[in-house]
Amino acid sequence: MTAQAARSARRGREARRTAREQSAAVSQPYIVRNVPLTELCSNEAIETIEANAETVLQEVGIEFRDDDEVLGLWREAGADVDGVRVRFPKGMLRQLIATAPSEYVQHARNPARKVVIGGNNTVFAPVYGPPFVRTGDGGRRYGTIEDFRNFVKLAYMAPAIHHSGGTVCEPVDLPVNKRHYDMVYSHMKYSDKPFMGSVTHPDRAADTVSMCEILFGKDFVADNTVCTSLINVNSPMVYDATMLGALKAYARANQAVIITPFIMAGAMGPVTPVGTVTQALAEAMAGVALTQIIRPGAPVVFGLFSSSLSMQSGAPTFGTPEPTLVLSAAAQLARRLKLPFRSGGSLCASKVPDAQAAYESAQSLWPAALCGVNFVLHGAGWLEGGLVSSYEKFIMDIDQLGMMEVLLKGYDTSEDGQAMDAIREVGPGNHFLGCAHTQAHFETAFYRSTVADNNSFEQWEQEGSRDTVERASDIVKKMLASYVPPPLDAAKDEELLAFIAEKKASFPDSNH
Amino acid sequence: MTAQAARSARRGREARRTAREQSAAVSQPYIVRNVPLTELCSNEAIETIEANAETVLQEVGIEFRDDDEVLGLWREAGADVDGVRVRFPKGMLRQLIATAPSEYVQHARNPARKVVIGGNNTVFAPVYGPPFVRTGDGGRRYGTIEDFRNFVKLAYMAPAIHHSGGTVCEPVDLPVNKRHYDMVYSHMKYSDKPFMGSVTHPDRAADTVSMCEILFGKDFVADNTVCTSLINVNSPMVYDATMLGALKAYARANQAVIITPFIMAGAMGPVTPVGTVTQALAEAMAGVALTQIIRPGAPVVFGLFSSSLSMQSGAPTFGTPEPTLVLSAAAQLARRLKLPFRSGGSLCASKVPDAQAAYESAQSLWPAALCGVNFVLHGAGWLEGGLVSSYEKFIMDIDQLGMMEVLLKGYDTSEDGQAMDAIREVGPGNHFLGCAHTQAHFETAFYRSTVADNNSFEQWEQEGSRDTVERASDIVKKMLASYVPPPLDAAKDEELLAFIAEKKASFPDSNH
Repeated sequence: MTAQAARSARRGREARRTAREQSAAVSQPYIVRNVPLTELCSNEAIETIEANAETVLQEVGIEFRDDDEVLGLWREAGADVDGVRVRFPKGMLRQLIATAPSEYVQHARNPARKVVIGGNNTVFAPVYGPPFVRTGDGGRRYGTIEDFRNFVKLAYMAPAIHHSGGTVCEPVDLPVNKRHYDMVYSHMKYSDKPFMGSVTHPDRAADTVSMCEILFGKDFVADNTVCTSLINVNSPMVYDATMLGALKAYARANQAVIITPFIMAGAMGPVTPVGTVTQALAEAMAGVALTQIIRPGAPVVFGLFSSSLSMQSGAPTFGTPEPTLVLSAAAQLARRLKLPFRSGGSLCASKVPDAQAAYESAQSLWPAALCGVNFVLHGAGWLEGGLVSSYEKFIMDIDQLGMMEVLLKGYDTSEDGQAMDAIREVGPGNHFLGCAHTQAHFETAFYRSTVADNNSFEQWEQEGSRDTVERASDIVKKMLASYVPPPLDAAKDEELLAFIAEKKASFPDSNH
Repeated sequence: MTAQAARSARRGREARRTAREQSAAVSQPYIVRNVPLTELCSNEAIETIEANAETVLQEVGIEFRDDDEVLGLWREAGADVDGVRVRFPKGMLRQLIATAPSEYVQHARNPARKVVIGGNNTVFAPVYGPPFVRTGDGGRRYGTIEDFRNFVKLAYMAPAIHHSGGTVCEPVDLPVNKRHYDMVYSHMKYSDKPFMGSVTHPDRAADTVSMCEILFGKDFVADNTVCTSLINVNSPMVYDATMLGALKAYARANQAVIITPFIMAGAMGPVTPVGTVTQALAEAMAGVALTQIIRPGAPVVFGLFSSSLSMQSGAPTFGTPEPTLVLSAAAQLARRLKLPFRSGGSLCASKVPDAQAAYESAQSLWPAALCGVNFVLHGAGWLEGGLVSSYEKFIMDIDQLGMMEVLLKGYDTSEDGQAMDAIREVGPGNHFLGCAHTQAHFETAFYRSTVADNNSFEQWEQEGSRDTVERASDIVKKMLASYVPPPLDAAKDEELLAFIAEKKASFPDSNH
């Protein structure tokens, strides 16, 4: 190739890349809500909850265990520190929280996939945490790193999933103290969507940041947020050393954390929705304020995991009305604090992806979508109270997430959307199928479910009377068979693998 | 028994009855919504839709077929009648509609079960119309009058169902031209909740009114609404003689009708939500206004049945986002017309009560509940696009309806609901299970699902790894086995049976 031809080819490639980037920029890789918020809680009740949370913070306080540094920070900031119990003068935390950004960009290694968390945006991420997996033909077993990679691949391929998430399942075949390397690497290698970091030990949080520095470059990570990680409160009203360590590591590195009160009402909080959300607000405010003491302006999300309890078995229940009330109020409170808000997802207690699973998941998902949750964890794949990542449920759930995206886009009120020409053209008693307007929108008019069977009974029976799980199984297999990895710079890949190998060799395996 | 003892016993019975009635009066036998409405459509878009609907009514018009009386009424009222096509000057229909009540009482033979349709109230009714039934062990077959009675009994026994509905399934074993007697009688005999009348022929509407006069008394029916019946528009923009006949019969008798545009978008209406709802508004306004010409002040409901279409198979789809957008906008439009509003229910396309059925039903039900629908038809039992009444799905759906009732009640903001004592009593790191507040609310704190399994995987497996359908099957059998009919005055019962026998003998059976 001549130099001129090479330049021309380069210009062609650049032009195509620019075109691709511009096209990606037109449609955001997350949902920008265009319908009014659903707010189930009155402003009067919200104000009562805020006042009560301040009372809880002042009178009862929050415990920060096994972390003298944090206790010192609270003392300096003007809180009343009594052993590990910290009490806060009214208004103090709200003032500290004011430095937190109301939204932040989380970058992805593919710039077209960066997400904005907060504001009118909704980001869907997969299930987080299950030690088990379930497959349609293999049943229930412990998760492996292969399962982990599979869920990362499925999430990568699902347009309705905007974020690769974190512990999509526990790779139980790897040692506890080293599996975070393989988990973070899997997100980096098999997906180019944004992801979450390890929080099970402060060192593992630091490892996550180091790996991000390899992937994104040290300078870039110093100035930008490239991971969002999950800090669960040990409700009621306790932060433990593990979570505080991870919180500090991430906040110092300007990486986002989701401060998540984790409340099964009746066990870790009061049985009433107003009581639960009061406690959640107090817990979240303390954690969010702590990030701002550590690094004012660090990105932080007000999180919530709330379920009811079966008073008979003590097991958590999902898809019931009480957590919906808790969620709506908490989302309202987060907005008043000008913080991004996180909740679940397609939650359920069912052991199999049956009608119970679907009812519960749907009744958990719509409040997340309608009440304006910004980061929806457990969007797909959650089964059995979070003990199981289900392949088939993942497929069913991403179909539901796709529908929520259409719903939140709202109404097309353009002249074309008004469809007056269609009504005039067709007139009384005639069919719209053939009219120009219908034909013009034939392909895209309605959300097309990937997994629902809308055929006639007779056709469905002829095809084997297959239920949703069987159809979803097929889709899982097809998707994994057709997976193509997003290209990763070879030098970075090598550097990541070398880092992991060196680290893994530097200390013995352990299951703690 | 002495006369005194008899009088004393009578007084005791009366006192107990009064106490029962008073207790029933405290809690309404329907839902009074206590959370803000979800309104997905902007006021600006709503005004555009209203203006466009007026344009449709003026330029395109509505056809009223095979009913010269109705055409005459429109001519007198000032509409432009051209053959069967009627066009309406802008504003004319809105003015006529102004006499319709914004809410009305539908009486039940048990006064404690009367419902108020409209305002902040939500009334749940069962599935309407399926020719088939499905049972967990028997599969899919044509419905019979025994199935019909069974669904009436189940609806009677379900606290979350407020209304006995109408054609809970088609009793295909009875002749078409006489089955309405058995259907209306079944509602009267096996339930004491309010019900719907026959609409398949004007004579059958008249028969329904006659039977109501026997049950409630002629004078009572003259002054009160005792049935609510379903008038479907032959969308797009056509009213046929059958429906007009039933509409006139009921409106003249001051009985309520639900004017229901029945639009599978893409076939009977435009593919866009704004276009669909524009057509629905035009159609509904014409029918509602007609009731007010016939009898100003007659109770009437703005109805809507809206689904999308699979552009591949032409089959209706359910639980997708587009009909939710249509529903929310239509509910907003009905409120601006100060009319009660009706929609479906727990709709789905699935052939079996599996995950597809549940996702679709849940995504159909929450908009009905949250967007302020006053009369929710197809609340329970709907399967396979409305072709099947499913026993097991009925059980699953009433569980969901019960949850919606709790959700719509909203927050308990009382001192007890705030639960500050519980938070103070328990404090950081401790369990709420044993605290006084939790113990006081142990039984009623959370909605208890009748059909969900929340046990551990191990226990669930030990008990046979049963899915939701199997558990629902058990409940069906238990409920039907324990059914006790509400007492019906023997003289009225005899009179009803005599009326039916005489009528049935007066003309030959026919399947038309």
